[in-house]
Amino acid sequence: MMEDISIRYVDGFTPGSLRNPILIEGLPGIGQVGKLVAEYMIHIIGAEKIGEIHSIYFPPHVIIEETGIARLTRNELYLHRGECRDIVFLIGDYQSTSNEGHYILTDAYLDIAEELRVGQIFTLGGFGVGHLVEEPRVFGAVNNPAIREGIESAGVIIQRNEPGGGIVGAAGLMLGIGALRGLDAVCLMGETSGYIVDPRSAAVVLSVLSRLLGITVDATQLNDRAAEMEKAIEGLIENERIQKDEELSYIG
Amino acid sequence: MMEDISIRYVDGFTPGSLRNPILIEGLPGIGQVGKLVAEYMIHIIGAEKIGEIHSIYFPPHVIIEETGIARLTRNELYLHRGECRDIVFLIGDYQSTSNEGHYILTDAYLDIAEELRVGQIFTLGGFGVGHLVEEPRVFGAVNNPAIREGIESAGVIIQRNEPGGGIVGAAGLMLGIGALRGLDAVCLMGETSGYIVDPRSAAVVLSVLSRLLGITVDATQLNDRAAEMEKAIEGLIENERIQKDEELSYIG
Amino acid sequence: MMEDISIRYVDGFTPGSLRNPILIEGLPGIGQVGKLVAEYMIHIIGAEKIGEIHSIYFPPHVIIEETGIARLTRNELYLHRGECRDIVFLIGDYQSTSNEGHYILTDAYLDIAEELRVGQIFTLGGFGVGHLVEEPRVFGAVNNPAIREGIESAGVIIQRNEPGGGIVGAAGLMLGIGALRGLDAVCLMGETSGYIVDPRSAAVVLSVLSRLLGITVDATQLNDRAAEMEKAIEGLIENERIQKDEELSYIG
Amino acid sequence: MMEDISIRYVDGFTPGSLRNPILIEGLPGIGQVGKLVAEYMIHIIGAEKIGEIHSIYFPPHVIIEETGIARLTRNELYLHRGECRDIVFLIGDYQSTSNEGHYILTDAYLDIAEELRVGQIFTLGGFGVGHLVEEPRVFGAVNNPAIREGIESAGVIIQRNEPGGGIVGAAGLMLGIGALRGLDAVCLMGETSGYIVDPRSAAVVLSVLSRLLGITVDATQLNDRAAEMEKAIEGLIENERIQKDEELSYIG
Repeated sequence: MMEDISIRYVDGFTPGSLRNPILIEGLPGIGQVGKLVAEYMIHIIGAEKIGEIHSIYFPPHVIIEETGIARLTRNELYLHRGECRDIVFLIGDYQSTSNEGHYILTDAYLDIAEELRVGQIFTLGGFGVGHLVEEPRVFGAVNNPAIREGIESAGVIIQRNEPGGGIVGAAGLMLGIGALRGLDAVCLMGETSGYIVDPRSAAVVLSVLSRLLGITVDATQLNDRAAEMEKAIEGLIENERIQKDEELSYIG
Repeated sequence: MMEDISIRYVDGFTPGSLRNPILIEGLPGIGQVGKLVAEYMIHIIGAEKIGEIHSIYFPPHVIIEETGIARLTRNELYLHRGECRDIVFLIGDYQSTSNEGHYILTDAYLDIAEELRVGQIFTLGGFGVGHLVEEPRVFGAVNNPAIREGIESAGVIIQRNEPGGGIVGAAGLMLGIGALRGLDAVCLMGETSGYIVDPRSAAVVLSVLSRLLGITVDATQLNDRAAEMEKAIEGLIENERIQKDEELSYIG
Repeated sequence: MMEDISIRYVDGFTPGSLRNPILIEGLPGIGQVGKLVAEYMIHIIGAEKIGEIHSIYFPPHVIIEETGIARLTRNELYLHRGECRDIVFLIGDYQSTSNEGHYILTDAYLDIAEELRVGQIFTLGGFGVGHLVEEPRVFGAVNNPAIREGIESAGVIIQRNEPGGGIVGAAGLMLGIGALRGLDAVCLMGETSGYIVDPRSAAVVLSVLSRLLGITVDATQLNDRAAEMEKAIEGLIENERIQKDEELSYIG
Repeated sequence: MMEDISIRYVDGFTPGSLRNPILIEGLPGIGQVGKLVAEYMIHIIGAEKIGEIHSIYFPPHVIIEETGIARLTRNELYLHRGECRDIVFLIGDYQSTSNEGHYILTDAYLDIAEELRVGQIFTLGGFGVGHLVEEPRVFGAVNNPAIREGIESAGVIIQRNEPGGGIVGAAGLMLGIGALRGLDAVCLMGETSGYIVDPRSAAVVLSVLSRLLGITVDATQLNDRAAEMEKAIEGLIENERIQKDEELSYIG
C-alpha cells in the first residue's frame, strides 16, 4: 500500500550519519531559479542520491526517462559530503497539486531534516517582477531574527512584504512551519521576470549562497547558459524591431 | 508533525482564567469590514496576543513581516481584559481555501470559545449591496431567538434572507455550528459596496457593537480614515467628470 | 466537535417506530422538480419534522430564516404517518459541493433508511431536455429488475441511457449504492427544460408517484402555480414578439 | 457503509485460482484506445466477469443500462482462461475525478494484481499527436529495464519523454507505483490524433499486444470499424472541400 507521502532512502544510507548537515531546497518555482541553483550545485560540487519522495499530492503521471523507464513524478534527496559539513539537496519534478498538500509535504520535508539532524535550511526561489532584469538582486527572508544579520551581510535584501504575495509553496512553508518546529531556515530569491527559466538569476543566487556557505562553486557553466539565453532573447527582440520597421516603411 | 489545525496559546496564558468573556470574530471578508472593526478595537482599547492558529486550510504561503521574518499565514487570538468582562478577538490573514475547511476551522474556533468559557460570540462582516452607500446600515442575524430583541433594540436590522446569499465563512458558520453546540452568537454586518475596503461601514458596525457591549470606543481614527477615503473617491469621480466634459467639448 | 456528516433526530423520535415506511428523496436538482414534489407533498398530506442533517460537504454558509435566526445549510427528514404505511421525506437546501461528498452523503442517507427500516426508496428529479415541454413525460430508473414492471405500468418510461449523462447526485446514487446494500430504489424524473423551476413537470411526477403509492394528493395548488408560471412565460414571449415587430416596422 | 474504494468479486470466484495470470488495463483515456483494445479482446477471445470496483473517486452518478437498471459508475474485472495462462482485464466507465484519487485507485488496482498473483501488467492507451495519423505507430514504456528489449523487439518505440507530458492516470501510475511494489508493467500507446475515438490506433496496439502475448486475436471487426470511421471522416473532409469551392466560385 502506497502512503500519502512515502520517503525511501537508498539501500545502505544511514540517516544519522551526516556531519553537521545543512539542507538546500531547490524545487520547481518562479523562473525555475531554485531548481537551477540546486541542480547546478549537485552537478558541479558532486552529490550522490540518498532518497526519493513520492506522494499522492504530486501530479498523477509518470515520466519516461532516458533509459525508457517510466517512473513516478517525485522529489529527490542528494547528499554532498563536504570537508566541514555535509549538504543535503531536496530537488524534484513538481510541488503539490493542492493547497493542503503543500503543507503536508513541507511537514514531511521537515521530518526528513530532523531525521538527518539538519542544522539550517536554505530554500531557493525566484522573485518575480514582471519585466526583464539586467542585474538581478537577491531578496531573502529568515524565520529567526538571530540569523537575519548574517544573511544581509552577504548582500541579501530582506524587506517587509517583499515579495508582496508572500513566498508560496515549500520555499516559504519550510520557513513558516520550520519556525514552529524550531528549525532555522533562510529563503533566497533571485530577481527574475517570472516569464522564462532564468539562469542569470540563478547565478546571482548561487553566488550569494556560496558566500554564505563558505564554499567555492565554479559558476562558469551557469553563466555561459545565461549568456546564451540572453543572446537568444536579444535576437528575438532585434527581429521584432526589424519586422516593425519594415511594416512602418511599407505603410510610409 | 503539523496537525490540520494547530492552536498555540502564548506561554503563561491560562485558558480558564478569563472573566465572563465574549468573543469577537473579525476575519477577512466583504469590504474587510469585520477585520477593520476588530483590529481597530484591539488598537484603541488595547489587547494582548494570547494565541495563534495555523492550518493546512489556509493558503500555502508565508508572509514577510516588518522584522524581515517569514511567518505562516495564520489567525490570531487577542485578549482585552475589561473591567466587567474580558473580550477575546479572533482576527487573521485569511479564511479557508476550501469549502470543507470553513466548517472544520469554525468548529476549531468554537472549541477555543468553549475552552475559554466564552458566554457570547459576535461575528463581524460586510453586507455587500453592489453600490456606494452614503449612510450604511447595520444588518444582523442571531442563532438564538432569545437574543434577537436585544440586538434589534441597538438598531440592527434583522430580516429573513438578508443577505440573500446567506452569510458565508466563519462569520456565518459560528452562528450555525454554534447553535448546534449551544453557544449564543450574533452576526453584525455593515452595509457596504463590496468593491473596496470600507472604514465607513466599519465605523457604524463599531458604533452598534460598542452600544451592545456597553463600552466606549473612540472612533475618531476610523472616521478620519473613512473621511480620507471618501475624499479620495470623490476626487476620482470628479476627475472622471472633468475628463468626460473635455472629451465632449473636443467633439462638440 | 462537528462530524463530517451529523444526523440529529428531534427529541422523542424513535427511529424503530415506523410502520412499513418508504423514503422519498426530493433534494435540489434539475428544474427543482424533486424538491417541488417532496415539499408539496409535505405541505398537502402533512408531515412532521423528525431530523436534520448537517455536513462539511454542504456549502459553507448560514441562511437567515423568517424568524431572523441564522441556521446552517442542511437537509431535513419529515415523517408522514399514513394509514397503511409511513412516508419519510428527505429534503434540503443543497447537495454536496464535491464529487466525493455526493457518495459519502448518499451513504449516510442510506444508513438512515436502514435505521428507519425503509422498505423502498423513491428519488425524484428532473429530466432536462433543453427546450420548453408542453406535456412533460415521466422517465424512470430502478435498481432492481424485479420492481421495473410495476413502475412502467404506472406510465413511467424506462430506457437505456435516458438521461444520457446518467443521474447525478443523490437521486442517482441512492439507486446505485442502494443496490450494493440491498435496498430497492426507484428514480422518477419529470421532463423539463432545465432552465427554470418547473411546477408543471413536478405535477406529472406527483401524479405518477401518487398512483404508485396508492394515495391521493390534491394537486390543485401545484397546477395553479404551473398555470401562473406558464402565463408569465407566455407574456414574456409575447412582449419579445411585439418588440421585434416594432423594430422591423422601424427598419421597414 | 461504502468504503472509499470497494472491490467485490463475483460469488464463487477464488482470487488465488488463476494460472500464471497477466493483467491488461484498458480504462478510458486518449482516443479511448486502451478501452477499445481491452473491450475488443474480451469480446473476441471471451472472458467472464469476476469483479467490480466502485469508488468515491469516480464521478457521482449512475448509468442506466439496457435493462433499465441504474448502476454506479464503476470499473470491472474480466477473466479469460487461456491455455497457457489466464488474462485478467481491467476496464471501466471512468478514471478518478481528482489527482489524489488516481494514486489511491491505482494502488488498489495493484492490490488486486497482487491478490490474483499477476506476473506482468500491460496498460494500454493512446499517444496523442494532435493530427490525423494514417499509419499509427505504437509507443511504449516499461517499469523495469529487464523487460525493455522484449517489448522493443515487438516493434514498440520506447523513447525518453515520449509522450512529453508523461503518461497520465492509471496507465502510467501502474508502472510507477508498480515499480515501487516490485510488479513488472508495460505501457503500450497507439499513436492517435487525440480528437476522436480511434479504432485504427487500437488495431495496431492489439496487433503488438497479441504478438507479445503469443496469442491470435482476429482483428477483422476492429479493422472494419476503423475503415467505416475513416470513410466517414473522408466524407466530412470532402463535404467541406466542396462547400469551400462553392463559396469561392460565388465570390469569384
